[in-house]
Amino acid sequence: MVQQRIRWGIMGCGFISGDFVEAIKLLPASEHEIVAVGSKDKSRAEEFKKKHELSCAVAYGSYDEFVKDANIDIVYVGTRNNQHMDDVIRCANAKKNILCEKPMGLNLAEVKKMYQVAKQNNVFLQEAFWSRFFPIYKDIRKIINDGIIGDVQVVQASLGFPILEKMERLYKPELGGGMALDLGCYLVQFALMVFGKGKKIEKVCANGWTKHSVDDTGVFVVKFEGCKIASLVYTGTTVLKCGAEICGTKGRIEIPSDMNAPDKYSVTVMENDKECTKNYSHERPKGDLSKFHFPTSNGLAFEADGVRKHLLTG
Amino acid sequence: MVQQRIRWGIMGCGFISGDFVEAIKLLPASEHEIVAVGSKDKSRAEEFKKKHELSCAVAYGSYDEFVKDANIDIVYVGTRNNQHMDDVIRCANAKKNILCEKPMGLNLAEVKKMYQVAKQNNVFLQEAFWSRFFPIYKDIRKIINDGIIGDVQVVQASLGFPILEKMERLYKPELGGGMALDLGCYLVQFALMVFGKGKKIEKVCANGWTKHSVDDTGVFVVKFEGCKIASLVYTGTTVLKCGAEICGTKGRIEIPSDMNAPDKYSVTVMENDKECTKNYSHERPKGDLSKFHFPTSNGLAFEADGVRKHLLTG
Repeated sequence: MVQQRIRWGIMGCGFISGDFVEAIKLLPASEHEIVAVGSKDKSRAEEFKKKHELSCAVAYGSYDEFVKDANIDIVYVGTRNNQHMDDVIRCANAKKNILCEKPMGLNLAEVKKMYQVAKQNNVFLQEAFWSRFFPIYKDIRKIINDGIIGDVQVVQASLGFPILEKMERLYKPELGGGMALDLGCYLVQFALMVFGKGKKIEKVCANGWTKHSVDDTGVFVVKFEGCKIASLVYTGTTVLKCGAEICGTKGRIEIPSDMNAPDKYSVTVMENDKECTKNYSHERPKGDLSKFHFPTSNGLAFEADGVRKHLLTG
Repeated sequence: MVQQRIRWGIMGCGFISGDFVEAIKLLPASEHEIVAVGSKDKSRAEEFKKKHELSCAVAYGSYDEFVKDANIDIVYVGTRNNQHMDDVIRCANAKKNILCEKPMGLNLAEVKKMYQVAKQNNVFLQEAFWSRFFPIYKDIRKIINDGIIGDVQVVQASLGFPILEKMERLYKPELGGGMALDLGCYLVQFALMVFGKGKKIEKVCANGWTKHSVDDTGVFVVKFEGCKIASLVYTGTTVLKCGAEICGTKGRIEIPSDMNAPDKYSVTVMENDKECTKNYSHERPKGDLSKFHFPTSNGLAFEADGVRKHLLTG
C-alpha cells in the first residue's frame, strides 16, 4: 500500500533521470523520497547517487536486483527509448508501479504489450507526459471547454532546436533515435488534447527529411473530423520559437515559448472587431536550479506531484 | 514619359481602392497625384471621389473611357479578383502601366496571358504584393543573406481571421472567392522570398476544408530542395495570430503579427547555448488613419512609393 510519502526508484542514470530527481527535491520531503537508483553499471549508479546527494538511496548495478527492492512504490523509467519496453515489463512483473519516460515505446505494438503486462500484474503504468501536469495546460483545457475562444478549429505548434547531432541516442536509429519520438510526440499530445476527444482523424499529411538515417525535421498536418486541423512542426537542427496557438472563431490562446513546459500564455478575444489580449503566467517550481540539465526541467515536479496524487487516490 | 509626380488612375471603387487612395495621400503631393477614378457606375465613381476628397480627379462611369484618359501614368486595378484579367488587358491595350491587386489572376493561365499582353504593349505590369515593399521585408532579406541566423531550413507563417462570411466576394466562387486567393497568397510569397530563389519544389502537401464551395481553411506544407520546408496556415473563420518565423541553424527571425504588413520583428541568435533576442520596429506611414478600412493599409504607401521609383528609373 502506498503511504503519504511515496518512495521512488530511479531506473537509468542519464540526464533526464538526474533532472527528475532534482525536481523531486523541490517538493516536500514528507511527500516524496528517493529510495533506490538502478543502472547496468554499479559505479554509474553510485556516481549518480553522489552527484544528486541521495545518501538514503540504495545504488544497484543490476536492473533485476533493483526491481526487487521492496521499498520502491513506483519506478521512474528514464532509460533509453529502445530499452523502455524491456524495462517496463521487468518492473511490472516485479509488481512495481511505473512512470515511463516518453516515448513509452518505439511503436504501437510495444506500447500495447507494455499495457497488457501492467494490467496482468495490476500495477499503475503511465507515460511521463509531464506537459499535461502543468497548471497552464489545465487552464487551457478550461478556457476551451468554457467556449471563451469560440469553436476551436486550428492548432499550430512547433518544437525544436539544434540538438540532433549533440546526443548519440538521438541520431542513432538503433537507440530509438529521431526527433519525432523526442519532440514530435509533444506536438501530437497537444493536438490530441485540444481535438482528440472522440474525434476521428480524417487525414494526415507529412513532409520533412532525415539525417543519419533518423528523422530530423518534419511537418505533419492532422485533420480531425468536423473542421479541425493541427499543423505541427518539429526539428532537431534549427532554432524554433517552440510556441503554440489554439485558434477559435472568437479568439485564441497563445503559448509564446516552451509549449511543452509553459510558464506563460495569453488569451485573445475579439471584442467589436478588435483584439483584446490578457497575459497570464504560472511559474515552474522554484529552488536551486543550477543542477538541471534542461532549463525547464523544474517543471517535472508538477508531474511527480500529480503521479503521487494518482497513486494515493487509486 | 513619366514625370517626377506620377499620376494614378484608380480602377474599381471598393474598400481596397479606398485604402490605396488614402495611403497615397500620406505621401508627398509633389510625387503622387490621383487624376482619375473609374467604375462601371458613374455615381459610384463620383461617390468615391467625394468620400476620398479627390476634387482634381475625373470620375468615369465606364472602364473603356477611363483607360483612354491621357493623364494617367499608371492604373491601380482594385476590381474584384474575377475581373482582373479583363481589366488588366484593357489597360495594357490602352498603353497604361499597371499595378494589379493580388491575386493577379485566378490561375496560371490568366496570369500568363496578362503578362503576354503587357509585354506586347510594352507597359509595366506588377502584382500589388505590397508586403514586399515593407522596410521590414528588406531587413529580413538582408539578415538571411548575411547568414546571421545560419542555414535557414524552416519557415512557418499563418494569416487569417473570421472574414469569409462577411464579404460576398470572398464566399462566392463566381466572384473569385476562397481564402487561398485572398490570404494564402501572402504565405506563398513569403516562403518563396525565403527559399524560392533557384530552389526546386520537391513536395507539396495540403489539408483543409471548404465552406460555401470555396476554400475556408488550409494548411500547406512546401518542401524545397536541400532541406528547406515551409508550413503555411490560412483561414477565413478563426482568429490566428498572423505571425511568421524564419528559422535557421543559428537563430531565427520572428514577425509577431501582421506578417503581410509588419511593423515589428525580432532576431534571436544562439550564443553559448542561450538565446539572445533583439527587437526592432519600423512603423507604417503616419497620418490620418481614420478613413482606412483595413487597419494596416497605411502600409500601402510603401508600395505606391516603390512603384513610383520603379517607373522613374525604368
